[in-house]
Amino acid sequence: MDCIFCKIISKKIPSDIVYEDDNTIAFLDISPVNKGHTLIVPKKHSENLIASEEKDIHESLNVIKKITPAIIKTVKADGWNLGVNNGPAAGQIVKHTHFHIIPRFSNDGLKHWHKKSYAEAESKQIAEAIRKEI
Amino acid sequence: MDCIFCKIISKKIPSDIVYEDDNTIAFLDISPVNKGHTLIVPKKHSENLIASEEKDIHESLNVIKKITPAIIKTVKADGWNLGVNNGPAAGQIVKHTHFHIIPRFSNDGLKHWHKKSYAEAESKQIAEAIRKEI
Repeated sequence: MDCIFCKIISKKIPSDIVYEDDNTIAFLDISPVNKGHTLIVPKKHSENLIASEEKDIHESLNVIKKITPAIIKTVKADGWNLGVNNGPAAGQIVKHTHFHIIPRFSNDGLKHWHKKSYAEAESKQIAEAIRKEI
Repeated sequence: MDCIFCKIISKKIPSDIVYEDDNTIAFLDISPVNKGHTLIVPKKHSENLIASEEKDIHESLNVIKKITPAIIKTVKADGWNLGVNNGPAAGQIVKHTHFHIIPRFSNDGLKHWHKKSYAEAESKQIAEAIRKEI
């Protein structure tokens, strides 16, 4: 399978690994938003978060809780974002589920997306439509 | 406790709820980045992802896997982002752990943060420093 993260997991491609166990690997993003930007990756290949098995992403969350304080301490960050991009329209480039840990600094100038408003009653209609689909 | 999400959970403040069970609630963000922007919230109060108990965030991930396909179908999205902001420097406003599900559309124009490069050997040094802290 021609998956770059599977090749990193099998060590066919080198990476700056910060943590590894039987189920999960974590390595530095080669193109970081900020220094210490780390990817947490379930070793078992699946395309995105919906396709991943619950136990694999639970393991990833446990690793995130375990290693993020060390990342934050090392780069002296003030906060951090967790992000997962699902689908090309959401910025997903590698089709192997992965979590981004992005260290943040009070003065890093990164802007969050602009928030909009709902028209009168629109949010109630959308919530009801979602509930019917669940 | 003066936590707006605890008040939403206890129904002291109304919200557009899309899903609820014993451990988790999901409701529409009142200021959505895109229509259908949903917050998934562990009912048990904790300040951020590191402070949350593993079982509570595992439950949240299970709810995310369960309800996101319904959100995507309802608003006819092309993809979606999962995000968690930890700390004011990372854009966290409400100090009660919550996951953002943001529906994405191929033409929505939302930009991702610019990615940088490491200097020669810098990433190896940072990875080593993180490993020592874990």
